[in-house]
Amino acid sequence: MKANAPPQSALVLFSAGQDSTVCLAWALARYGRVETIGFDYGQRHRIELDQRPIVLAALRALRPDWAARLGPDRCADMTGFGALAASALTADQPIAQPEGELPTTFVPGRNLFFLTAAAAFAYGRGLDVLVAGMCETDFSGYPDCRRATIDAMEAALALGLDRAIPIETPLMRLSKAQTWALAYELGGEPLLNLIREETHTCYEGDRTQRHEWGYGCARCPACELRAKGWAQLVASQ
Amino acid sequence: MKANAPPQSALVLFSAGQDSTVCLAWALARYGRVETIGFDYGQRHRIELDQRPIVLAALRALRPDWAARLGPDRCADMTGFGALAASALTADQPIAQPEGELPTTFVPGRNLFFLTAAAAFAYGRGLDVLVAGMCETDFSGYPDCRRATIDAMEAALALGLDRAIPIETPLMRLSKAQTWALAYELGGEPLLNLIREETHTCYEGDRTQRHEWGYGCARCPACELRAKGWAQLVASQ
Repeated sequence: MKANAPPQSALVLFSAGQDSTVCLAWALARYGRVETIGFDYGQRHRIELDQRPIVLAALRALRPDWAARLGPDRCADMTGFGALAASALTADQPIAQPEGELPTTFVPGRNLFFLTAAAAFAYGRGLDVLVAGMCETDFSGYPDCRRATIDAMEAALALGLDRAIPIETPLMRLSKAQTWALAYELGGEPLLNLIREETHTCYEGDRTQRHEWGYGCARCPACELRAKGWAQLVASQ
Repeated sequence: MKANAPPQSALVLFSAGQDSTVCLAWALARYGRVETIGFDYGQRHRIELDQRPIVLAALRALRPDWAARLGPDRCADMTGFGALAASALTADQPIAQPEGELPTTFVPGRNLFFLTAAAAFAYGRGLDVLVAGMCETDFSGYPDCRRATIDAMEAALALGLDRAIPIETPLMRLSKAQTWALAYELGGEPLLNLIREETHTCYEGDRTQRHEWGYGCARCPACELRAKGWAQLVASQ
């Protein structure tokens, strides 16, 4: 990034969930060049990895102006981190982690890890900023979602890379209803429909049950938040 | 870590090189419980990974008091990070990175990445501090070796993990000659001999040529630093 030049390009941490898809639309509305990165860390369900190209294709189809700015996408293999985190509590014993299963004891710090990997990639790609969907409103229990943590990480990365790569978190102080509203603002009904139909949030990996707000088990915390936010948006119209 | 309790245990970032082996001895002299972690990031030579168990076994054999405090060791698979870094400059093209080759364009930020992984592991293992061999004296060209960077990373990790995990860098302001002297102080001639014989530093992965200061090509920057430090130590005796 040239000194004093406004940022021109962004790398979006994209998981094909509702939040990161809204972040991606937000970045596409602001930057001339937008790339995406995701992380395979051995998550419990492959469904969010499977939805990545589908959501990206749908966004391209929806808006030719976005299609012109978007790409390439990169899905980075971070299964070693998942395995490391899983084994932390069992390092004295042989690791008996069923393949593809995320442990319930998943170690905090995951977001710092992903931000560091994304920043290294952005550095190599010459991208100016990171955009990430962390939100301290809904997920206050996770210390690495707080803006104070992101600020500290941004400072460490600027020193470690010897280049400032701001981390933009457009959803940080939004409720889920406000995130739905932001999606409407960015892309109207078509983007709302795309998010409802193609993005995945459910912790249980359920894409068989269809609801007003999308697919999911409707019982896990992620589904509950998504459904409640949607209901609030509808009620406010 | 309990509030106000002095740290009792450490996780050492251990690569089987001279610096991290001195760090490990330094930690064994201070803490009642010391574990080690290393990173396979697809480095050019496997030799440093092969030397890990050898150096650890030699340290155990040398000092039963250290043997009682040491272990387990963990070598974490971070090849995904190596591949990500390598592909940053080629993400538009198919990746044509020869297997096991570290690109010359290896992306900065590697130390931040490893520290984040180590901190997440230490958190899960209930270890109090990290010990790492970064040194700003000899490697001032790498911004992620500076203490200012480490301080910022420490702050980010404390917020992200919601627990302070200090990062101790005993070699930060030492010359290579002073690092050899520290090894002597910690373990006398036997530790010096162990470091000369078993640790690996050479960028070229050469373990066929034997010198006073250990094995290596004697021409790469790492060998030159190691040899020069050794010569200074000898001259000062």
